[in-house]
Amino acid sequence: MMLQNPAAKYRAFPAVQLTDRTWPNAVISKPPIWMSTDLRDGNQALIEPMSPEKKLRFFDMLIKIGIKEIEVGFPSASQTDFDFVRKLIDEDRIPDDVTIIVLTQSREELIRRTVEAAAGAKRAIVHLYNSVAPVFRKVVFGMSREEITNIATTGTTLVKELVAQHPQTDWGFEYTPESFSTTELDFSKHICDAVSAIWKPTPQKKMIINMPSTVECSTPNVYADQIEWMSRKLERRDSLILSVHPHNDRGTAIAAAELAVMAGADRVEGCLFGNGERTGNVDLVTLALNLYTQGVHPGLDFSDIDSVRKLVEECNQLPVHPRHPYVGDLVFTAFSGSHQDAIKKGFAKQQPDQPWEIPYLPIDPQDLGRSYDAVIRVNSQSGKGGMAYLLEQDFGLVLPRRLQIEFSRAVQAVADQTGLEITSEGIHQIFSQEYLEQTAPYAYSSHKMQEDTTSDEPVQIDIALSHRGASMALQGGGNGPIDAFVDALGLDIKLMDYHEHSIGSGANAKAACYVELRLENGPTLFGAGIDSNIVTASFKAVLSAVNRQIKQREAASAPADAGAAA
Amino acid sequence: MMLQNPAAKYRAFPAVQLTDRTWPNAVISKPPIWMSTDLRDGNQALIEPMSPEKKLRFFDMLIKIGIKEIEVGFPSASQTDFDFVRKLIDEDRIPDDVTIIVLTQSREELIRRTVEAAAGAKRAIVHLYNSVAPVFRKVVFGMSREEITNIATTGTTLVKELVAQHPQTDWGFEYTPESFSTTELDFSKHICDAVSAIWKPTPQKKMIINMPSTVECSTPNVYADQIEWMSRKLERRDSLILSVHPHNDRGTAIAAAELAVMAGADRVEGCLFGNGERTGNVDLVTLALNLYTQGVHPGLDFSDIDSVRKLVEECNQLPVHPRHPYVGDLVFTAFSGSHQDAIKKGFAKQQPDQPWEIPYLPIDPQDLGRSYDAVIRVNSQSGKGGMAYLLEQDFGLVLPRRLQIEFSRAVQAVADQTGLEITSEGIHQIFSQEYLEQTAPYAYSSHKMQEDTTSDEPVQIDIALSHRGASMALQGGGNGPIDAFVDALGLDIKLMDYHEHSIGSGANAKAACYVELRLENGPTLFGAGIDSNIVTASFKAVLSAVNRQIKQREAASAPADAGAAA
Repeated sequence: MMLQNPAAKYRAFPAVQLTDRTWPNAVISKPPIWMSTDLRDGNQALIEPMSPEKKLRFFDMLIKIGIKEIEVGFPSASQTDFDFVRKLIDEDRIPDDVTIIVLTQSREELIRRTVEAAAGAKRAIVHLYNSVAPVFRKVVFGMSREEITNIATTGTTLVKELVAQHPQTDWGFEYTPESFSTTELDFSKHICDAVSAIWKPTPQKKMIINMPSTVECSTPNVYADQIEWMSRKLERRDSLILSVHPHNDRGTAIAAAELAVMAGADRVEGCLFGNGERTGNVDLVTLALNLYTQGVHPGLDFSDIDSVRKLVEECNQLPVHPRHPYVGDLVFTAFSGSHQDAIKKGFAKQQPDQPWEIPYLPIDPQDLGRSYDAVIRVNSQSGKGGMAYLLEQDFGLVLPRRLQIEFSRAVQAVADQTGLEITSEGIHQIFSQEYLEQTAPYAYSSHKMQEDTTSDEPVQIDIALSHRGASMALQGGGNGPIDAFVDALGLDIKLMDYHEHSIGSGANAKAACYVELRLENGPTLFGAGIDSNIVTASFKAVLSAVNRQIKQREAASAPADAGAAA
Repeated sequence: MMLQNPAAKYRAFPAVQLTDRTWPNAVISKPPIWMSTDLRDGNQALIEPMSPEKKLRFFDMLIKIGIKEIEVGFPSASQTDFDFVRKLIDEDRIPDDVTIIVLTQSREELIRRTVEAAAGAKRAIVHLYNSVAPVFRKVVFGMSREEITNIATTGTTLVKELVAQHPQTDWGFEYTPESFSTTELDFSKHICDAVSAIWKPTPQKKMIINMPSTVECSTPNVYADQIEWMSRKLERRDSLILSVHPHNDRGTAIAAAELAVMAGADRVEGCLFGNGERTGNVDLVTLALNLYTQGVHPGLDFSDIDSVRKLVEECNQLPVHPRHPYVGDLVFTAFSGSHQDAIKKGFAKQQPDQPWEIPYLPIDPQDLGRSYDAVIRVNSQSGKGGMAYLLEQDFGLVLPRRLQIEFSRAVQAVADQTGLEITSEGIHQIFSQEYLEQTAPYAYSSHKMQEDTTSDEPVQIDIALSHRGASMALQGGGNGPIDAFVDALGLDIKLMDYHEHSIGSGANAKAACYVELRLENGPTLFGAGIDSNIVTASFKAVLSAVNRQIKQREAASAPADAGAAA
C-alpha cells in the first residue's frame, strides 16, 4: 500500500555541491569506450543463464558489431564461467584487438582463481570490486571506512603481485567502488585514490575507475554532478579511464550515461537492449545510435539490427519491447494519417546527398536494415475492426505483429488503387494473394521425411517441387524439418522468425504457419502457408517468403516501362 | 547500412544559448499536473485501437488511480472518438474534479466538431495544435512563419467564440506548437505569445502552453534548456501552465520530463507504461514512482500496480517489459547470491518506522502490492540447468515467468532446510506438493457444463466439490468455463493471469493449466492443475490457487507456537 506521506520512509537524494558544473554546456562529439557486460551482469540476471554455446554465439556477435571490451564472466563464482573464459583463451577465440574483462570480489582465493582464469589471454583486465556505500558498511558488513578501504587496497596489491607472474598477458586493471552512486563522494575519492596509489597507473598505461549507479536513485543530472566532481578531484586523473555503469531503476539509465559522458566519463559499461539485474543495465545499442543520429559514428555497427535482436532474444530468452528505441517492432511505424502524409511528403523531397529531414523519423530505417511502415486501419470506425482483428475473428488467422505491419502495406496499396472501403472478405483475399498463393517460381508438390533423434542430423528429407513449371527433386538434412527443408533448397536463407497455430479443431483442423526470412542480402519478408499437416504448412510458408523475395527483386530490376508494355 | 561518416546525413542538434541556466540546481519537491493521453496518443498508436468498452474501462481506471486531466480523444478525426466523448458526457461518467481534454487541428470544421463533442461536460479543455517546425513549414506545408502563426491565431479566435456559446461548461484552452523541440525557440515564443494574446488568460484562469518533443532528438539537458528559455521569455507567464509532452525516441523521455519540470514545467502529458506513437510517450507510472521514492507523494495511487498493468496490457494488447521499472516481472528479483545475502541482512535490520534502507531495492515492493523474490538456480553449474529448464525438459511443464519466480521460493525453502543439491525429480516433487496436490480445503470432484453462445450468459455449470471433507454442489454461470466456475465458487476471486498448454500428444496428451489470482485482498498467487480435459485442468488450477491462499492465511494467523506444539 502506498503511504499517504512517504517522506518518513523515503529520503530525497542529497544534491551534489557543484554550482560551477560544466557538463550542461558539453556536447558529445566522440564515442566513449564501450564495454559489454552482457555475459556477466546480463547473464547473471537471467531466469535461465546462457549455455556455453549461447555465450559463444553472443561473444562472436559482440566482436562482429565492434565491441572491443567484453566482460566474459565471474570465473571465481562459477565453474561454468571459469570454463568459458578458459575456452575462449585456449581455443584462441579472442581477436588481438579485443580485451576480455573478468570480475572478482576482493577476496584472496577469488582473486587467485580469477587471475588463473584469464592468464594466457593476449589482453585481459582484472576487474576488482567491493561495496562501499553506507548501507553496506553498516547493515551488510558492519565495517568502518578504513576497513572497507583495506579490502580494496589489499586486493589490489594481490592482483598486482599475481598478474606479474603471467607476463605473456597484457594486463589491465579496473576498480569499482560498488554502489558508488549512493556513497559519500569524499569516501569514493578516498578509496579510489588509495587503490590507484597502489596500482600506479601512468598516462601511457592507464587503469579504469568504474563508478556504477548500482541502483539508480536520483535524477540523471545528480549522477552527472557526481561524475564531474570525481573527474575534477581524483588524483592521477591523467592516468585514469573514468567509466560508468548505469542501471535503470528510475528509467533514466540512457540519460545518466549521456550526461555522465558530458561530465567526463570516458567509458560506458552496459548490455545490448538493456539486459541486466532488475531493470537492467544501460542499453548500449540506444546509446550508440543516439550518437549516430547526431552525425557521430559510434564505432559499432548495427546495420542489421534485426539479426542482433534475434540473437539477443534467443540467448536471453527475454523479448525486446515493441517500442524499444531503434529496434522495436513499432518504432518506424506510423498509424496516424497526418503522420503518414507528412512522412510521404518528406520522402518525396528528400535528396540522397542532403541531410536527413523526414518528419517523425529521427533516423533512416534503412541504415539499420529496417523499413518504414505506414499502417492503415480498415473499418477503424468500429473501434475494433483492424485488419488483424478481422482476419482472426472471421478466418482464424493470428498474424505475428511484424507480419501485421508488413501486410498493411499490401492492403494500403489496394486501398490506394481502388479508393474503396475494404471488407473483411477483401482483406482475406489480399492476404491470400499476397502470401498463400505465392507459388512462383517455387511450388510445393510433396515430401518424404525420416527422423532419427539418435543421429547427428536427425531429419532427412526428400522434397518434390516445381520451379518455373519444371519438376525438381531435392534432398537435405538438419536438426528439424524446416532446417532440413532449407538445406534441401540450397538457397542462402536466414530464418528470422517462425509462428504456427491451429485453425479450428478436430478432424478439420488446419495449421497456419508464418515465417520471416532473409534471402541472400535482401530485406526480411514474411511468407505464410496453410495445411492440415503442420510440417507441410511450414514448408509452404518458407516457399511463400522465398517467392515474395524473388518477385520483389525481379520487380525492382525490371526496366521501368516493362510493366506498361506488358 | 550504417554510414562510415554519418555527419553529412545527420546534423547534431544545436545547443541552446543559456549559460545561466538554473535547472541543474533544482530539486522536484511537488508533483506536476499529470495528464494522461492514453486514450488519444496512446490509442492512436495501437495496431488494434481500443473498443469503446476497453476505452471506458481504461478511463475508469485512470480516475481510480487519481488522474485529473484525461485526453479522451480526437473527436473530429473519428466518429468512434466523437461518440466516446459524448457517451462520457451524456451518461455523466466524468467526476466533478476530472477535466477531459479534446484534441483538434486548427481547422474550422474540425474545431466546430470538437467543441460540439465536448459541450455539456462540467470541465473540458480544447487542445489546439499545429506543426511549427522548419521541416513542416518547408516540406509539408510550404508556408512562412506568419502563415503558420495565422493558422494558430485564427483557430484560437474561433475556439474562443464557439466555447462562449456553451456557458454550462467550464472551458479551458491548451495550445501545442507541434514539433516544438525541433523548432527555433524565438519562433515558438512568437507563436505562443500570439495565441495567448488572443485567449487572454489570467493568473486566476490560466491557459496551457504544451511544448512537446514530438520526436525526441537531443539529450534531455537540451530539452530542459529549451523549457527554461521559454519559461523565462514567454509573455503572460503568470497566466500560463507550462506543459511538456516528451516522446522516447532516444530512450530518455523520463529524464527529459524530470529535467523539464526542474526547468519550470508545471504539467506532464504521458501514458501509463509509456505507450504512444513509435517509441511511446513518457511513462507516467515511472515518473510518479520516481517521485515517491524521494519522499514526495505523486498524487497517484499504484498500490495495486499489477492490476493496473493487467488492464493496460489487455487494452493496449502490448506487453509491459519484464525489466520495466517498478512493474516488470523481474525488477524486484535477485538472482545473485551476494545480492540475496545483502537484501536478507537489510530486511533483518529494517525497522518499520525507520527510513527504507534495503540494498538493491530502491522501493518497498509491498507499497505497490508486490513482493521481493530471491530466485535460486538449481544445477546452475551446467549453465542450462535452471528449474524452469528442468521442468520443461523432463516433465513438459512450461511455467509462466511469474510462476517461475514464485516457485523458486518453495525450492529455496527446501534447499535451505535440506542443504542438498536438488535434482530434476526433486524439483518436480516440490512442484507437485506446492501446486498440484493442493486439494484442501477445496477438492474438485466433477462438473457438468452447458454452453449456448446465443445466450447472455453462455456457460452454465454444476460443480461437485469436497470442502474439508464434506461434499458440496454448486451452480454458476458466466461467459466462459473459468468465469462460470468462479461464479459457482462464490468467493471474492480476481483472476490475474491464465496459461494452458498441452503435455505430450495424441491419445495420452494432457493439459497443464496455471492461473494467477487474488483471493479477497490477499497477495496474487498461482495455482496449477493437470488433466486430460483442458477445462478440468483449469478448474483444478483455480482451486490450487485458492487453497494455497487459504493455507498461507491460516499459517499467518496461527499462534506462533502452534507448529511447535503440534
